[in-house]
Amino acid sequence: MAIRGPMGLPVVGMVGGGQLSRMTHQASIALGLSLRVLADATHDSAALVAQGVTVGDHTSLDDLRAFAEQCEVVTFDHEHVPGGLLEALEAEGLRIAPGSAALRHAQDKVVMRERLSALGVPVPPFCPVATVRDVEGFARHVGWPLVLKAATGGYDGKGVWVVADSAEAAEVVASGIRLVAEQLVPLRRELAAVVARSPEGQGAAWPVVETVQSDGICVEVVAPAPDLPEALALQAQSLALMLADELGVVGVLAVELFETVTPDGETRLLVNELAMRPHNSAHWTIEGSRTSQFEQHLRAVLDWPMGETTMTAPVVVMANLLGGDDDEPDLDRRVHMLFGRDPGLKVHLYGKALRPGRKVGHVTALGTDLDAVRQRARTGAHYLRTGLWLET
Amino acid sequence: MAIRGPMGLPVVGMVGGGQLSRMTHQASIALGLSLRVLADATHDSAALVAQGVTVGDHTSLDDLRAFAEQCEVVTFDHEHVPGGLLEALEAEGLRIAPGSAALRHAQDKVVMRERLSALGVPVPPFCPVATVRDVEGFARHVGWPLVLKAATGGYDGKGVWVVADSAEAAEVVASGIRLVAEQLVPLRRELAAVVARSPEGQGAAWPVVETVQSDGICVEVVAPAPDLPEALALQAQSLALMLADELGVVGVLAVELFETVTPDGETRLLVNELAMRPHNSAHWTIEGSRTSQFEQHLRAVLDWPMGETTMTAPVVVMANLLGGDDDEPDLDRRVHMLFGRDPGLKVHLYGKALRPGRKVGHVTALGTDLDAVRQRARTGAHYLRTGLWLET
Repeated sequence: MAIRGPMGLPVVGMVGGGQLSRMTHQASIALGLSLRVLADATHDSAALVAQGVTVGDHTSLDDLRAFAEQCEVVTFDHEHVPGGLLEALEAEGLRIAPGSAALRHAQDKVVMRERLSALGVPVPPFCPVATVRDVEGFARHVGWPLVLKAATGGYDGKGVWVVADSAEAAEVVASGIRLVAEQLVPLRRELAAVVARSPEGQGAAWPVVETVQSDGICVEVVAPAPDLPEALALQAQSLALMLADELGVVGVLAVELFETVTPDGETRLLVNELAMRPHNSAHWTIEGSRTSQFEQHLRAVLDWPMGETTMTAPVVVMANLLGGDDDEPDLDRRVHMLFGRDPGLKVHLYGKALRPGRKVGHVTALGTDLDAVRQRARTGAHYLRTGLWLET
Repeated sequence: MAIRGPMGLPVVGMVGGGQLSRMTHQASIALGLSLRVLADATHDSAALVAQGVTVGDHTSLDDLRAFAEQCEVVTFDHEHVPGGLLEALEAEGLRIAPGSAALRHAQDKVVMRERLSALGVPVPPFCPVATVRDVEGFARHVGWPLVLKAATGGYDGKGVWVVADSAEAAEVVASGIRLVAEQLVPLRRELAAVVARSPEGQGAAWPVVETVQSDGICVEVVAPAPDLPEALALQAQSLALMLADELGVVGVLAVELFETVTPDGETRLLVNELAMRPHNSAHWTIEGSRTSQFEQHLRAVLDWPMGETTMTAPVVVMANLLGGDDDEPDLDRRVHMLFGRDPGLKVHLYGKALRPGRKVGHVTALGTDLDAVRQRARTGAHYLRTGLWLET
């Protein structure tokens, strides 16, 4: 049941119409494809730019089935399709990548934490909790404050609560959300190891990056992670490739890591989260690597061999553009001014309404000097957001 | 009458649905735009991948006007819109870039040759001809064989005839096409100087490239042109920037050049053709330059400052993929095999039917060793076309 498009190439569908889908569509164009998109609405980021857009509900089996039946293989720009529906599609012989068995580990933090623990992968101490008493019991081991996370559905800092005591924990528990409690790990910084894996089991890793968060949202990614000892970088890449293999991932796997220091001063990596799709921590690969994460994801989904992940510059920094308070900035003018000031900066805008705090674009700077490259990326994102130049 | 799309950014339209439009759409996505395309048919290369596609006739004023009225500015993926219609659109206050006064020089070889001669730019000896007697008169100056070219409408070797004598010339003249005769210049090789110019007059040049033709179709582009003395490269870039300025080009200007040797052994550059749009000789810039020609064209059309044209590798070679005799190759399998053999090769497929000799894609190789990079590009294009590996 090969479903082919122009040039006899397979038809790939992506569930979700966000910026990941938008940038995957861009990559698909080079490969002779045209991504089909199942979007929530016609004004979704990807729906604005792709030809084959279906508006539908990603929690409806009928909508998913009708979409998948037009595609050789379906992949995802988010984790929000219920696992039961994914299994139903697979049972009907429809191809999804990654498969439901892998995706569970990106959808459910309890499943992920338990599987990783079983594999001997270092994770923060955790415990599924249903009552305040459960939380209190866990707190006796790890102390207050601790972290409560929604087992499913969180993203960009949503679904994460740092609670200082039982009273605060009780408020979160009262929401009725299924929760997992975690130790609040004292961390030095956050890293991400992003890899891709094809169905044949071929893996490819990009350099490990440092990710900088603000209010739980990634604001900056530095590639490669500055001053990361080679041994730790290799350890992180190996870990991510091993996980991709063990979990049977097809496509991009982003492993978010905490870099911590043990009481005796040793650096240690803990796995924080997994994502099985193109990921914000690898947007820099569009210009910064010979193969972007979006192309690589498609190659994996199509069972094509992985592309080279060599960097195109010694240092690449991506800064996210978040919507500001100014909801109708003259972006045309701002892009004009910014390009005049920094002709090497690469700007990506997602076509989204500029709600405060929402990711609406990113900028990428490439070069050789870390401080200079970082300053350029920050200046670009800040100027597009505010219309003001950062003091340097 | 600002016509704005998502994020308040200007709406850009492109007349023509070919691969240039397809790749411009790809670049437009990053910039927060979604290219509107006026295509001949829904299966046109760009129409397969863009959201805002209008099917219409680019020789109909009504169709052009209706399209242009939805856009802040309209640009072109070919030269085939009649000049009178462009002037009519401008007279109605609709914005086109480049404007009709510039575009004439890419549309009409007689106009171009006369203007360039007046500017003192070296061109091959030429003469507009209407009769066999005209051709014979010109032949007395330049000898046989000579070249006859359609004054308008030619591309990819179409509209060009090398004629050995009056009898052969008579056949071409009998077609009734408006012709210009040119000396058959003994050339060493062909080069291209590609630049872009913004309405403010800012110019940016990519390195001069060598273009290799077969049967009048470009099959390979090498950046930078091997062994081109720096002084000649600068001369070619300056010439192209000067022409962009003199002709008032907005967007990409490709200047096709003949590299010839004078009787006293001196190397000399002659202008062969002009194109005022993204051009095959700069497809290598997608991965090979910090700013691709497609992004640069959009920046110019939007009056945004020009982007950096630094190369991302010392040597970049692009090889065109032409349709083979095999009209239903298993491209899925071929791409798979090719990516397995060369994970660094970048493949671009245009979604077009594989008619023999038609440009249906290109591959780009990047690296440091010219012979190795060229071999990789050739091997890739040859394998995709034939399913056979080139002997190395």
